Amino acid sequence: MLRLLVTGGTFDKEYDEISGTLFFKDTHVGEMLRLGRCLVPVAIETVMLLDSLQMTDADRATIADRCRACPETRIVITHGTDTMVETAAVLALRIPDKTIVLTGAMVPYAFGSSDGLFNLGSAISFAQVLPAGVWVAMNGSYFAWDDVQKDRAAGVFIRPTRPA
Amino acid sequence: MLRLLVTGGTFDKEYDEISGTLFFKDTHVGEMLRLGRCLVPVAIETVMLLDSLQMTDADRATIADRCRACPETRIVITHGTDTMVETAAVLALRIPDKTIVLTGAMVPYAFGSSDGLFNLGSAISFAQVLPAGVWVAMNGSYFAWDDVQKDRAAGVFIRPTRPA
Amino acid sequence: MLRLLVTGGTFDKEYDEISGTLFFKDTHVGEMLRLGRCLVPVAIETVMLLDSLQMTDADRATIADRCRACPETRIVITHGTDTMVETAAVLALRIPDKTIVLTGAMVPYAFGSSDGLFNLGSAISFAQVLPAGVWVAMNGSYFAWDDVQKDRAAGVFIRPTRPA
Amino acid sequence: MLRLLVTGGTFDKEYDEISGTLFFKDTHVGEMLRLGRCLVPVAIETVMLLDSLQMTDADRATIADRCRACPETRIVITHGTDTMVETAAVLALRIPDKTIVLTGAMVPYAFGSSDGLFNLGSAISFAQVLPAGVWVAMNGSYFAWDDVQKDRAAGVFIRPTRPA
Repeated sequence: MLRLLVTGGTFDKEYDEISGTLFFKDTHVGEMLRLGRCLVPVAIETVMLLDSLQMTDADRATIADRCRACPETRIVITHGTDTMVETAAVLALRIPDKTIVLTGAMVPYAFGSSDGLFNLGSAISFAQVLPAGVWVAMNGSYFAWDDVQKDRAAGVFIRPTRPA
Repeated sequence: MLRLLVTGGTFDKEYDEISGTLFFKDTHVGEMLRLGRCLVPVAIETVMLLDSLQMTDADRATIADRCRACPETRIVITHGTDTMVETAAVLALRIPDKTIVLTGAMVPYAFGSSDGLFNLGSAISFAQVLPAGVWVAMNGSYFAWDDVQKDRAAGVFIRPTRPA
Repeated sequence: MLRLLVTGGTFDKEYDEISGTLFFKDTHVGEMLRLGRCLVPVAIETVMLLDSLQMTDADRATIADRCRACPETRIVITHGTDTMVETAAVLALRIPDKTIVLTGAMVPYAFGSSDGLFNLGSAISFAQVLPAGVWVAMNGSYFAWDDVQKDRAAGVFIRPTRPA
Repeated sequence: MLRLLVTGGTFDKEYDEISGTLFFKDTHVGEMLRLGRCLVPVAIETVMLLDSLQMTDADRATIADRCRACPETRIVITHGTDTMVETAAVLALRIPDKTIVLTGAMVPYAFGSSDGLFNLGSAISFAQVLPAGVWVAMNGSYFAWDDVQKDRAAGVFIRPTRPA
């Protein structure tokens, strides 16, 4: 059994045709798992629906609380990409004994050409086999929480260049 | 670096609007990896484009040859679901020292609501972390080659019931 | 008020993921009109769900009966493209005093990249402004029932070449 | 032969995955006509790519100039919905002798569930059969330029209530 914590991010944004802006209504994660014919038992819990640029320390503490409180030891978190790495660092300090995989999307699932479905399949899979620790699953790869950064200009996750 | 061997299956079927039937034109795997913003290096090789019900022993031997011949030790194979388990068994006998993950789809990717993108994200991920052996990645799970069967009535992969 | 008679055709075909074949489950026309934000009152009536190659004289008589019996004088008919012209000819002989527009699709709406939504918008529009008579609305054009044929090799509707 | 003047609007907006905002890159009208298998000859001309709330009197004068200058007497204009009616009024004063049909979309075509394809089929059709004048084709209907307004709260076009 996996726990899937929804926190928002581009993943779940929708287009409001009256205002012409993007907003959150509800998560698409359940629908995406049905579309993927996922039969792994997943307990979905919407913790918040936030653009990750607006996520506060208190929000991250809430996410950590939910990770600790849930009975599952394998957790997927959907999260905005902009501060995914910051949240991963907070979780790594507080939750040493569970496998936590953060993922997100560059394009809203509702816009049809999203990377979200690919990333969700990837995160669900990594969460079943990686050891305890906090990981980011993006761009088909998995990254340890302390060996990843978002290249915002390119919109991709990379391993930071290290000094020799 | 992963090797991705394309063998056909529902994954890559398309609709021929002149005849009103399904056919193979070319694989969509490269487009799907771009859509998923996959940055894991993947060498894509189209071995055949077959409905897996029409796959022969000779075809399976060809697939095994390609698995053995390629330099990569981690391989994803896209395959029709109907005989995916048979091919997995052939590969398990012949390729003991590589991680091989077979995946497929119940709905063609070209039909928009496919499980294929989810499964591809899943297979690419499992292939990076599972040990040597032959695996089936379907329905969000991974199955050892000798502990899986397709429930054709339900259209899903399950672990067979074993006698005590 | 328009009447929309559903008779089947590629328009409404779906993919059966268990058998891997195309079949009819229900019409998508209501969903398509909602997607198009159509506010023209349309009374939708499913007369049959047939591949038009299997349509018989009795089926065409049934369609004609429904055209005559309904109170509306402006009618759209969704129909398989293969025998759309034959049905148009039957209707032209029997229903002289209503505006009847037949339309269809080359790709099932459910497959995402369909011409069906475009054609439905076109047919609904022509039906509101063309005079009494039987018309085919395909490929963005309108054709009089006796000045149209399907070019099956190209999958398009054309005006037949006439001898001088 | 129809002329199709592109002016922007929601129709052609896209999602910028780096900034998370909507922007214009290029028109999708040509792709949409191909998807609709439209065989009516259409000369596509991109006049501007603007959110219609930012359209100035000078922009409207430019659109009118293009309507007058082009050889075709039947014209479709894609336009943002917010000021479509204002542009229609300007054109009605300046172009008395051509059939001009304005259309738009509530959801970007690139977001997959757009009304744009339906509306384009509708506008292309009305443009072929309506008499000279300026018309708005939205919600499956056609409206004379002086008998239409956008209900911004509902996101639909209606005929204004007239005093008796």
